[in-house]
Amino acid sequence: MYDWHFDDLTPGMRFESLGKTLSEAEIIDFAFQYDPQPFHIDKAHAEAGPYGGIIASGVQTIGTAIRMMVQARVFAPEIVLGSPGVEELRWVQPVRPGDTIRSTGELLEVRASQSKPERGIVRYRMDVLNQRDEVVMTMTSTTFVRREPAATGGAA
Amino acid sequence: MYDWHFDDLTPGMRFESLGKTLSEAEIIDFAFQYDPQPFHIDKAHAEAGPYGGIIASGVQTIGTAIRMMVQARVFAPEIVLGSPGVEELRWVQPVRPGDTIRSTGELLEVRASQSKPERGIVRYRMDVLNQRDEVVMTMTSTTFVRREPAATGGAA
Repeated sequence: MYDWHFDDLTPGMRFESLGKTLSEAEIIDFAFQYDPQPFHIDKAHAEAGPYGGIIASGVQTIGTAIRMMVQARVFAPEIVLGSPGVEELRWVQPVRPGDTIRSTGELLEVRASQSKPERGIVRYRMDVLNQRDEVVMTMTSTTFVRREPAATGGAA
Repeated sequence: MYDWHFDDLTPGMRFESLGKTLSEAEIIDFAFQYDPQPFHIDKAHAEAGPYGGIIASGVQTIGTAIRMMVQARVFAPEIVLGSPGVEELRWVQPVRPGDTIRSTGELLEVRASQSKPERGIVRYRMDVLNQRDEVVMTMTSTTFVRREPAATGGAA
């Protein structure tokens, strides 16, 4: 639990989540609903294909990494106001059934919004690592956070 | 069904998928597993929060848009070799329960790989629209495709 609030945040602060092992079944289930390409959902096709076997949808890697970051409470849940987007995202190497991934990251920039004084803007880099500490995904993103303790809405 | 192969591809070609209506239940279910932030999963908190109600995880918007693009068979399934990443992704406005989203897009760049002659590289822009034709998400991404009919691995 980090539970960082805006006044705690400084560029260079680092975080790391717990890990999650992805089963073949959940990789196929997720991709069947959200990214139904043959190398994610069809074992025989995947084995004959470019990756030599089933690999996880990159969208599932994003979601798993974000959940692990949310569960680590990197930012206190009551300050997070959503994200305008992602600057760059790279799928560096495949995530395969049985792999365990975790989120690590570093704050790059912390500033107050010019237009909305109650809002802070945090740029961060996330590196998703596997059980061999190899980078499988990198992402640079921005999150909006409240600068004051929330007046409405309790903590999660 | 577009079922484009490499030799068909030219910058400026456009595609559009069918639409998908997102229910409140599936928005909450997805986010509970992959992006469990209060404004995605807790109605009372979301109503008092920055968006005035539950909004879909941006990760679910990505996945839904990709599935709709895969189902439209923009690229023939047997030529797709995966993606190295995303250049830029913006969540322009919230997706709310009951909204219907669809993928539209345009090919930006089509070229042969220098290092792997059997591979083509396609840059494209995707705009995800809602039922009012408002842009909810934009993404610029790259996909690798086979340049020849697949020797192994059948069509999906």
